[in-house]
Amino acid sequence: MERAVVLLSGGLDSATCLAWANAQGFACHTLAVDYGQRHAVELAAARAVATALGAVEHREVRVDLRAIGGSALTAPIEVPKDRDPSRAPGIPVTYVPARNTIFLSLALGLAEASGARDIFVGVNALDYSGYPDCRPEFVAAFETLANLATKAGVEGDKFTIHAPLLHLTKGDIAREAARLGLDPALSHSCYDPLPDGTHCGQCDACRLRAKGFAEAGLADPTRYA
Amino acid sequence: MERAVVLLSGGLDSATCLAWANAQGFACHTLAVDYGQRHAVELAAARAVATALGAVEHREVRVDLRAIGGSALTAPIEVPKDRDPSRAPGIPVTYVPARNTIFLSLALGLAEASGARDIFVGVNALDYSGYPDCRPEFVAAFETLANLATKAGVEGDKFTIHAPLLHLTKGDIAREAARLGLDPALSHSCYDPLPDGTHCGQCDACRLRAKGFAEAGLADPTRYA
Repeated sequence: MERAVVLLSGGLDSATCLAWANAQGFACHTLAVDYGQRHAVELAAARAVATALGAVEHREVRVDLRAIGGSALTAPIEVPKDRDPSRAPGIPVTYVPARNTIFLSLALGLAEASGARDIFVGVNALDYSGYPDCRPEFVAAFETLANLATKAGVEGDKFTIHAPLLHLTKGDIAREAARLGLDPALSHSCYDPLPDGTHCGQCDACRLRAKGFAEAGLADPTRYA
Repeated sequence: MERAVVLLSGGLDSATCLAWANAQGFACHTLAVDYGQRHAVELAAARAVATALGAVEHREVRVDLRAIGGSALTAPIEVPKDRDPSRAPGIPVTYVPARNTIFLSLALGLAEASGARDIFVGVNALDYSGYPDCRPEFVAAFETLANLATKAGVEGDKFTIHAPLLHLTKGDIAREAARLGLDPALSHSCYDPLPDGTHCGQCDACRLRAKGFAEAGLADPTRYA
């Protein structure tokens, strides 16, 4: 079995991505990043998803992006609620500078050190918040970089960055999760949960999550405030 | 004054890079990464260099690459001594998987969050250990990625990755440090120093450092074991 490193945030997208990589026959090593996010409940969700889906190994790497700031997720900036992208266009303040570049870099380091050449990331450029590091051109540029940056890459043992959800709608993702037997209740999407982990129901992540289940015609197991 | 983020390892190259950025008129924000390296004395050297060269601000970000391993600098693997590249060609075990990709990603996040669009890194592809993430094609690919990955980049407020030492010999770098008024005794290069910070004199980093002063015909202030 080929090894893969799968970035796991604990959200529905990365959980579906892990289920997808499993179904492709990869032996999945999952990686969660504890970056000082305000919604640390997602780290517990990532552990639960990794266990439920039989990851070979689950690792957490800490990198405190609060030392960098610049985002509602890592600095004392309010998470927007009931945001209407048509009235407030552009990239919202929940964008974390260079987050997916940092996460993929860590996944690349782990992949090279552990002999994996396939890296999975659950980014999606259709039903998303407009983050630039979720787009196909970003994923392609990272793959190019990965093969120039590493000993394995320059020796011809190339890395592939897989982003199987890139062109799916949130409805497609909810359906794909169901097809792959993933229990979506294990995942956590909310940027600003209540202390007991209940989803706020109003942030971008909650709204996209609810939209997915509704579009797919599936029951939404999420507890919203 | 334009702001810049300068990656500072505490070694002679990154210290010279900071002096160079200063001389270009940038207001320099320095960034050191505490990655669990065995030679943590370099973090103290980075602080000393930042202070001596008048950095506007010096930050340390922690990311424990021992959770990834795969290198003599982050795992219990012996640092090679008196290595002869002609007899043992290839990339040595001191290579840290994806290290400069991770470091530049953190620098990119800090730059975007703090309004800097210029990032300096002291990589060198001439007198080096053959690390793939020190080469011009890596630096160019990272700059491309940076402008696809970020809000600023996609909005047309582009990042530039500066690597002013890329094509210098170690002798050139020692001369450049002297010309810019840098006290090289503040810097630390050794991969495997004695507990009191004395350079071992036998690792790749020590050998390249000593070669630089010798080639430049300058006194070497370093205490070697």
